[in-house]
Amino acid sequence: MTYETIAAAYVDTWNAAAAAERDALLASHWDADASYVDPIMSGSGRDGIAAMIAIARAKFPGHSFALDGKADGHGDHVRFSWVLAPDGGATVARGTDFVRVGADGRIVDVVGFLDKMPG
Amino acid sequence: MTYETIAAAYVDTWNAAAAAERDALLASHWDADASYVDPIMSGSGRDGIAAMIAIARAKFPGHSFALDGKADGHGDHVRFSWVLAPDGGATVARGTDFVRVGADGRIVDVVGFLDKMPG
Repeated sequence: MTYETIAAAYVDTWNAAAAAERDALLASHWDADASYVDPIMSGSGRDGIAAMIAIARAKFPGHSFALDGKADGHGDHVRFSWVLAPDGGATVARGTDFVRVGADGRIVDVVGFLDKMPG
Repeated sequence: MTYETIAAAYVDTWNAAAAAERDALLASHWDADASYVDPIMSGSGRDGIAAMIAIARAKFPGHSFALDGKADGHGDHVRFSWVLAPDGGATVARGTDFVRVGADGRIVDVVGFLDKMPG
């Protein structure tokens, strides 16, 4: 696993439209006890994070997340920025996430910050 | 404590030229078991962090740290960016730090990332 592949797996998880696909990505790339917190949402465990992502996605139909720039990291810490936008449309939100991964490369915890709040 | 005052105390600690001043700031604003890690340095406990800062400062005589923009945060998580520059001179390094604070507002751990590596 590289920091780039961890960031890519993270964005893929948020972009998974089907629950089964999301669950498979969570099982592959996130620790069973993973936690997530940002200024407006939080979730714990794969099921909690799956539910949180489903709720967030329902608020932004037709939108998807993309990495903004490159991920970087050191040790078990990864940092990357992202944007949320509708297909071909202007960015509606952007943020920077700080991720800690376990020895197996799975995401253990995420602390997210918003650089542009969803309107 | 606000996120801004935590960030200010953090930068003050890095800028303290005298060991006694640095130790006083660490005692006031950092947890006894605080930890710090970035891509090139790490330190644990107030003494370990004091020693790490002293070594870093010795590499950049006449330089000081300043906040770059505003700190933000949510819950016990704080984020801010900084620049390192000589008095009146060009920035030699910049970074973004992610800080977790305890219930008493003291800094518990810091994960730093470099946005511009010291040359």
